Amino acid sequence: MADDATTVAALRARVAGFVRERDWEKYHRPKNLASAISVEAAELLELFQWRSDSEPVDAELKARVEDELADVVIYCLSAANTMDIDLSDAVLRKVGRNEARYPAKEWRGRARGASLEG
Amino acid sequence: MADDATTVAALRARVAGFVRERDWEKYHRPKNLASAISVEAAELLELFQWRSDSEPVDAELKARVEDELADVVIYCLSAANTMDIDLSDAVLRKVGRNEARYPAKEWRGRARGASLEG
Amino acid sequence: MADDATTVAALRARVAGFVRERDWEKYHRPKNLASAISVEAAELLELFQWRSDSEPVDAELKARVEDELADVVIYCLSAANTMDIDLSDAVLRKVGRNEARYPAKEWRGRARGASLEG
Amino acid sequence: MADDATTVAALRARVAGFVRERDWEKYHRPKNLASAISVEAAELLELFQWRSDSEPVDAELKARVEDELADVVIYCLSAANTMDIDLSDAVLRKVGRNEARYPAKEWRGRARGASLEG
Repeated sequence: MADDATTVAALRARVAGFVRERDWEKYHRPKNLASAISVEAAELLELFQWRSDSEPVDAELKARVEDELADVVIYCLSAANTMDIDLSDAVLRKVGRNEARYPAKEWRGRARGASLEG
Repeated sequence: MADDATTVAALRARVAGFVRERDWEKYHRPKNLASAISVEAAELLELFQWRSDSEPVDAELKARVEDELADVVIYCLSAANTMDIDLSDAVLRKVGRNEARYPAKEWRGRARGASLEG
Repeated sequence: MADDATTVAALRARVAGFVRERDWEKYHRPKNLASAISVEAAELLELFQWRSDSEPVDAELKARVEDELADVVIYCLSAANTMDIDLSDAVLRKVGRNEARYPAKEWRGRARGASLEG
Repeated sequence: MADDATTVAALRARVAGFVRERDWEKYHRPKNLASAISVEAAELLELFQWRSDSEPVDAELKARVEDELADVVIYCLSAANTMDIDLSDAVLRKVGRNEARYPAKEWRGRARGASLEG
């Protein structure tokens, strides 16, 4: 699996190269990237909007999810590049904060009002 | 920088552990995660909604962006776990498709209608 | 019910007055309003993100939905004011197009791929 | 202008009729509608994502904005129908709360942290 062998930095570099080769830095300003992440997130959501919770994810849907999820992540990587943000550090620190905020003992099995992002 | 040394799999494992310890898998079904990604993306966008393009990102804003960007990415990682999606593979394949779709020679400096996600 | 007696123009005028009294027109440019509509839409979505399809909407949730739905609509009204768009005309024409695109005879009871917005 | 002569109830009735004729009520449950509103809001945002604040809205863009704005509003109207919410009442009450929260004297010309939705 590529995820086992690919660092976040490697993905950021690939995206940075793509942007640079096309001189698209001027489009990749923070506000535009924030908009793009929302737009792509909605394209992912659209795949599920009329489905019920219980419908399984078949191979066709999974392929489309991979495509839209990639789009969201690509723009997140570009945002990290543009604003010089260490994504791994930000993610790990946030998970740590959530672990303290939602101790497993108290929150096992229940999540009303709770979430991964706190 | 943590991004240089952290694989996507390592981040996924951290998020998976957080979810498992709390028995939150039942909340992390695909449709809910797609909703969560959109919700977090909008919280990131909200940081910019009244700002003009030209306002710089100061240290305070950058810290808030890191926090919201982490939230988006955390849910993307959880979605990859839930649906068994290799994020690096999906991202690299998509960038490759976009490289072919937007050859640098033709698209340098212009992007009307073009985007990273194609 | 206020909806029976309130024209869209009356709602637009109320919102326009609010904006004008505060000299907030400079914030209510099209791109900012488009961002605001997305941000508010996500706050509405957030009320449902961990719920299952079958959970009923109780009085407490309904009150919160009213609040967030109002926010979305308020920004849509402001966008109509800013860009001089007749909302009723746009809505009625779109429903008409969808009626032609999804004839009731063929589409009764099924909607995979179909939607209100077409 | 149609907005001068069209009540919110009239628009709601048109949307309700469209849904009923197709037996689409089962798709128009609250959570699905909340998702749809977000999806449509993002399609509206997409029209602006690579534009700068200063680019004017030409006739072509305005036509596309009308179309996407109609989609957002149509789903808001359906949500009001599904959850028996008086939209005009909700909007007017919210504007009233915001008028009290952001007195014109104090907030004229400045909005950092302030917004229409409070």
